[in-house]
Amino acid sequence: MQPRFAVLTLGVDNLERAYEFYHVGLGFPSKGIVGKEFKHGEVAFFDLKNGTILAIYPRKDLGWDANVPVGDRSSTEFSIGYNVRDAAEVDSVLELAKHAGAKIVKPGQKAFWGGYHGYFEDPDGHLWEIVWSPQLIPGD
Amino acid sequence: MQPRFAVLTLGVDNLERAYEFYHVGLGFPSKGIVGKEFKHGEVAFFDLKNGTILAIYPRKDLGWDANVPVGDRSSTEFSIGYNVRDAAEVDSVLELAKHAGAKIVKPGQKAFWGGYHGYFEDPDGHLWEIVWSPQLIPGD
Repeated sequence: MQPRFAVLTLGVDNLERAYEFYHVGLGFPSKGIVGKEFKHGEVAFFDLKNGTILAIYPRKDLGWDANVPVGDRSSTEFSIGYNVRDAAEVDSVLELAKHAGAKIVKPGQKAFWGGYHGYFEDPDGHLWEIVWSPQLIPGD
Repeated sequence: MQPRFAVLTLGVDNLERAYEFYHVGLGFPSKGIVGKEFKHGEVAFFDLKNGTILAIYPRKDLGWDANVPVGDRSSTEFSIGYNVRDAAEVDSVLELAKHAGAKIVKPGQKAFWGGYHGYFEDPDGHLWEIVWSPQLIPGD
């Protein structure tokens, strides 16, 4: 197995609401909700800069597709780390996310390991950590 | 906000077990469990091929770090999509994962949208979809 993955799919309760959040609110590019011709196929894809894809897909369809029971919301299953150039950008991204409908669960602050970070939850309770770390500065 | 993320952090119940699964079982490169000098800092990072990072971090510490309650396991929160070159490789990756301790929740089979896929759960119930899609063939 190679150390890679191509797609991160988020289970959501309301596909339109999640699409609005990521596409309109955060500005992630997408061709919209597709797959309506399939009973369990409605999904939206967001093309990310490094060639990977972020997808949103109803939790109930993910459970059906993966052959597992649909679970309750649970924010501590994972978090997505979004690195920025400086502490001020942590605050501005959190503000943008809040404006888009996110819940700020941890405002921007110093992190115990030396950086600066904060967290928001998307409308489905999925965690994004917005983080400034001197060891991981984005190039774009 | 740019359409990207740098790190995907998986919440786990047992860091050593998750490390064994990903590093020894699946062969993902890592420098091991680090951050032991911090009370809530034990974590392991796996460097992925596209420059992103897969991390494993205790659920209880993720809840503490993000300032959210620790939730129950819930497999339908997300899934990670791992694309392969052909249907036979779907089966062989699932077999590798099973050998490493994964639970095969959906054996390799034709997918409704035309490809071939199967799913496993890692030791913490996180879903990986192993998938052959003619539209997304890995280059390595």
